[in-house]
Amino acid sequence: MFNKLCIIGVGLIGGSIAKSARHYNLATNIVGFGRVDDIENLKHAQQLNIIDKYYTNIQVAVEQADCIIIATPVGSFKTIFKQLKPYWSAKTIYTDAGSTKASVIKAAQSVFGYVPNNFIPAHPIAGAEQSGAKAAILDLYKNKRLIITPLENTNKKALATLQIFWENIGSTVSLMDIEHHDAIFAATSHLPHILAYTLTDLLGHKNETVEIFKYAASGFNDFTRIASSDPTMWLDICLANKNEIIPLMAELRDKLQKIETLLQKNETQTLFETFCYAKNARQRFLEQLDN
Amino acid sequence: MFNKLCIIGVGLIGGSIAKSARHYNLATNIVGFGRVDDIENLKHAQQLNIIDKYYTNIQVAVEQADCIIIATPVGSFKTIFKQLKPYWSAKTIYTDAGSTKASVIKAAQSVFGYVPNNFIPAHPIAGAEQSGAKAAILDLYKNKRLIITPLENTNKKALATLQIFWENIGSTVSLMDIEHHDAIFAATSHLPHILAYTLTDLLGHKNETVEIFKYAASGFNDFTRIASSDPTMWLDICLANKNEIIPLMAELRDKLQKIETLLQKNETQTLFETFCYAKNARQRFLEQLDN
Repeated sequence: MFNKLCIIGVGLIGGSIAKSARHYNLATNIVGFGRVDDIENLKHAQQLNIIDKYYTNIQVAVEQADCIIIATPVGSFKTIFKQLKPYWSAKTIYTDAGSTKASVIKAAQSVFGYVPNNFIPAHPIAGAEQSGAKAAILDLYKNKRLIITPLENTNKKALATLQIFWENIGSTVSLMDIEHHDAIFAATSHLPHILAYTLTDLLGHKNETVEIFKYAASGFNDFTRIASSDPTMWLDICLANKNEIIPLMAELRDKLQKIETLLQKNETQTLFETFCYAKNARQRFLEQLDN
Repeated sequence: MFNKLCIIGVGLIGGSIAKSARHYNLATNIVGFGRVDDIENLKHAQQLNIIDKYYTNIQVAVEQADCIIIATPVGSFKTIFKQLKPYWSAKTIYTDAGSTKASVIKAAQSVFGYVPNNFIPAHPIAGAEQSGAKAAILDLYKNKRLIITPLENTNKKALATLQIFWENIGSTVSLMDIEHHDAIFAATSHLPHILAYTLTDLLGHKNETVEIFKYAASGFNDFTRIASSDPTMWLDICLANKNEIIPLMAELRDKLQKIETLLQKNETQTLFETFCYAKNARQRFLEQLDN
């Protein structure tokens, strides 16, 4: 499909894209670009045959690439766009794997003054709490959703090619508005991550004085799993999408306060209805997951 | 070990105890007691060979039992103690599987005026989100912790027998103060359940107007798993332990508000340290889980 695919940031996300692209014969030559202080990770990626070559020089890395995928934390996009700008080619498809989309568009606009029509903003809905190329998983994106948030000027041919690329990897591609995307993921992904970090921070401090983790069960393990996610990546996401996240956090605090009051007043019926509503809502979620 | 074991409430918890007791030859005869409106569940339990017989008459159910385990929601304990009182036998070991302990002791005191010395308060640290006898799992308690919270007057022989019973099931038995128990589980279990219910309630309502669950990933699935837990049981637990839970909810709201402010002000360093602290705290938890 592509003669040369360049992955910018060969971590869990970028490394897994590279693995899938190779496995499904979507690229003849896969190269990785990273910062000099990321050299050990890039070496591992090459040793593991995830990429064929790695570069810390962007000019060489992107030269004659048919497709360039930015898979670094969203906070670094402005820097990446600045590095790409001198070598930007109309023949290349540029895309990303960032979890927020308004911030990515803003970064492009701040560097180019507009969004180049061959940059296709995308977001694969998959992840794991490990990080680095060593954590890369073939088929991380198989049977998962991939969202593309095109702009009015987005090149239709480049978009169609990218869609086929992801479909060949096994993803189900949806198109969506940027604002809609960011609102949805603030709710189902960013807020849960913040909650998991906050709760684990609270209990971690308690555990320092009174041993409580020793008695935690599988429910706690599942509930806090996402608190093991990469802090750099998630800090970037939370800052990038804070305008959506902060009002949700306030809503949640408000709801928690209401539950506290209900508990205080032994309002069993309302509490019961809330718990039942939640259980049923999750059931609807699970049924969608099966379809 | 026991000639007759009586399980009061043959749901996931009680049914799993019965299955283990039978599998490890800890009881010759296992009977179940339940309310008349629980008759279908009791029939299933008998059909599945989880119990040998079931009764809705407590006098017959407990007659000559060597051990009686109360495995109903903690909110029902006062009623159960009242039913048991006329047939209370000094020869029998009484115990429970309730997730809160101060409330259980209070229920016993309110019925007997004191806590009978052959009632041994216990809490197996295991569960699943399904409910009912059909959901019972052999070895649900294997390699899990079982906490006994003895009182000063607790009969030492009965306690020792119960400890051996649970060790034969495969559990690791710890002894603990009631207050310490309730504080620990408010933090690691009850608070996470309330959070999962509250978040799922919030997002469920949003999902009614804008489809958001469709795009939720595995992180959301794990994070909300405990929101599928039995609402009756969890409402009881939350009310029974509300004195421990409410201050923790207030602490958490306070911490969330601080995170909001940090996000608002782009305080990246403090946010990064918080996320890192949480990730490391969870790592410590995982290391304890392995030991």
